[in-house]
Amino acid sequence: MPMQKFSQILLAHGGGGQLTHQLIEQLFIPTFENTALSCRHDGAVLDVHHAQIAFTTDSYVVQPLCFPGGNIGTLAVNGTVNDVAMCGARPLYLSAGFILEEGFSMPLLQDIVDSMQQAAQTAKVQIVTGDTKVVDRGRGDGLFINTAGIGIIEHACKIAPQQIQVGDVVIINGDIGRHGIAIMAMREGLRFESAIESDCAALIDPVFALLDAEISVHCLRDLTRGGLASALIELSEGAAMQIQLDEAAIPIRDEVQGACEILGLDPLYVANEGRFVAFVAPQDAERAIALLEQHSPHNPRIVGHVIQSNSSAVILKNKLGVERMITRLSGEQLPRIC
Amino acid sequence: MPMQKFSQILLAHGGGGQLTHQLIEQLFIPTFENTALSCRHDGAVLDVHHAQIAFTTDSYVVQPLCFPGGNIGTLAVNGTVNDVAMCGARPLYLSAGFILEEGFSMPLLQDIVDSMQQAAQTAKVQIVTGDTKVVDRGRGDGLFINTAGIGIIEHACKIAPQQIQVGDVVIINGDIGRHGIAIMAMREGLRFESAIESDCAALIDPVFALLDAEISVHCLRDLTRGGLASALIELSEGAAMQIQLDEAAIPIRDEVQGACEILGLDPLYVANEGRFVAFVAPQDAERAIALLEQHSPHNPRIVGHVIQSNSSAVILKNKLGVERMITRLSGEQLPRIC
Repeated sequence: MPMQKFSQILLAHGGGGQLTHQLIEQLFIPTFENTALSCRHDGAVLDVHHAQIAFTTDSYVVQPLCFPGGNIGTLAVNGTVNDVAMCGARPLYLSAGFILEEGFSMPLLQDIVDSMQQAAQTAKVQIVTGDTKVVDRGRGDGLFINTAGIGIIEHACKIAPQQIQVGDVVIINGDIGRHGIAIMAMREGLRFESAIESDCAALIDPVFALLDAEISVHCLRDLTRGGLASALIELSEGAAMQIQLDEAAIPIRDEVQGACEILGLDPLYVANEGRFVAFVAPQDAERAIALLEQHSPHNPRIVGHVIQSNSSAVILKNKLGVERMITRLSGEQLPRIC
Repeated sequence: MPMQKFSQILLAHGGGGQLTHQLIEQLFIPTFENTALSCRHDGAVLDVHHAQIAFTTDSYVVQPLCFPGGNIGTLAVNGTVNDVAMCGARPLYLSAGFILEEGFSMPLLQDIVDSMQQAAQTAKVQIVTGDTKVVDRGRGDGLFINTAGIGIIEHACKIAPQQIQVGDVVIINGDIGRHGIAIMAMREGLRFESAIESDCAALIDPVFALLDAEISVHCLRDLTRGGLASALIELSEGAAMQIQLDEAAIPIRDEVQGACEILGLDPLYVANEGRFVAFVAPQDAERAIALLEQHSPHNPRIVGHVIQSNSSAVILKNKLGVERMITRLSGEQLPRIC
């Protein structure tokens, strides 16, 4: 897609689609140029005094702050823990920066901070340093949280987009679209027969189930903003590989599928907060699925394969066997989902 | 001062005074309870795979975004670099999280990101990982930046509030109040004969000048929000020591002193972004001053002494020799200074 020039930031620059990609590729990466950034990984993998550590950050601006299955605090812990884990690192420590709007409810802040601590305990990480800023009324939106995370890489696997190989299978750890739909349903005031809850969760157990069993994991990526489609497009470009995605194999709950139809959303692009893809050597695929079934019991599946090198593309084979190339969203489907 | 209960966040909760202290002590530290946090240091000092690293974070919400001597980007790099350095660690890597408001100027973003990269190069750190979020118009304030930083501790000195000893001298690396006055003058439309520029700068050179020369440094603290007074009160409590501060010795430029009088501000509480105090063993004081004069040529001085243990207080001896205890500000003197 040709690059466009914008004089102003649009909402879509934060959506995880084409404009976010453009901002990163045209502004941030060329300016901050370094090898860690240019890996285009979920975090930086760094050598620090003979240790390999992963370092990552995300800011969270989700609205509403509380939603079925979580709140901005659980998201801020699990999201950053997961980015560390996607580097193949065991998350150890988090920082937490709070930007509060004047007038924000103190009891709600306490609830959110309590949720962060519970999520941190579940993920076995400590929140060891932090910061609080307050902005005047009307200059913020209640609460934004930034977390940064540090983890340690304890194994010899190299996990990065550049490690993806032709023949790798793409495994997903569960059904897609729940986080985005839970948020969207709340914003739109939609009610379903059974409530759709965010899948927000730490992914340490399923990731380390694979790594500890010495599954040949070549790359990991969690499926947040922009969903499965955007993550795979990003990885296919990072690896310079073509990925074939089998639509019939992608697990989607009926209520999520139904909500997507009502809301006019493509579930492939809807955000998740407890789902990831693993690129695994084909001989290990069956064992990987069995391990994921124990540690992430949400219907893990093989959803695709890496079919060709030297050019990047994600080809979706639909339920009728028809193939089409999928591309980044050019606009903003679901603003402020995380 | 007795603790008050608030049902809502006030601007003063972000001011670095009494209410910020209360929020940290009553909400964040008890909830996230761990040994790193309870050190009340500028960052967490952590053992990671036989290495000692420092990890710290700050969000930056300064208004206006650009000011004489810097902008939100230089502040975001230098502020976090300095917090790492205050742990006695050599800063290595930063993360950067951007929260942009829809409609923000793309050229201004590029300028600010360029300034960050220049500041990072000067401080010899790399910005290795990042994140961008966009909030809808009216729900942010142009640009907020969060940075987190990692550094490595390469020496055997223990640098922490708990290491402060009776007899230590308190050395400041230069004149105080310039950052706060530069911001405030701009907001109020004040003009001075000679423009007052922020002192925004990385403090790595002066800090490592002391450490590399094996000066007995017991504690370091940069003097940001809340200024010299708030930093010393914090440290006197962390150390359970009394500090005597000699007003006549504190370097303040005439134009800063004049502006403080016009604006009704006490320079002891005005923010700095390139100033720190070092608590140093008395026999090393003279050598420390000489080193600082080489590496931070802004009139470094001995401004106080640690005079007693077991109870915390900061006693200001004024120019007439009269002593009074100084306390945290209960309100907000200069909102959104950093």
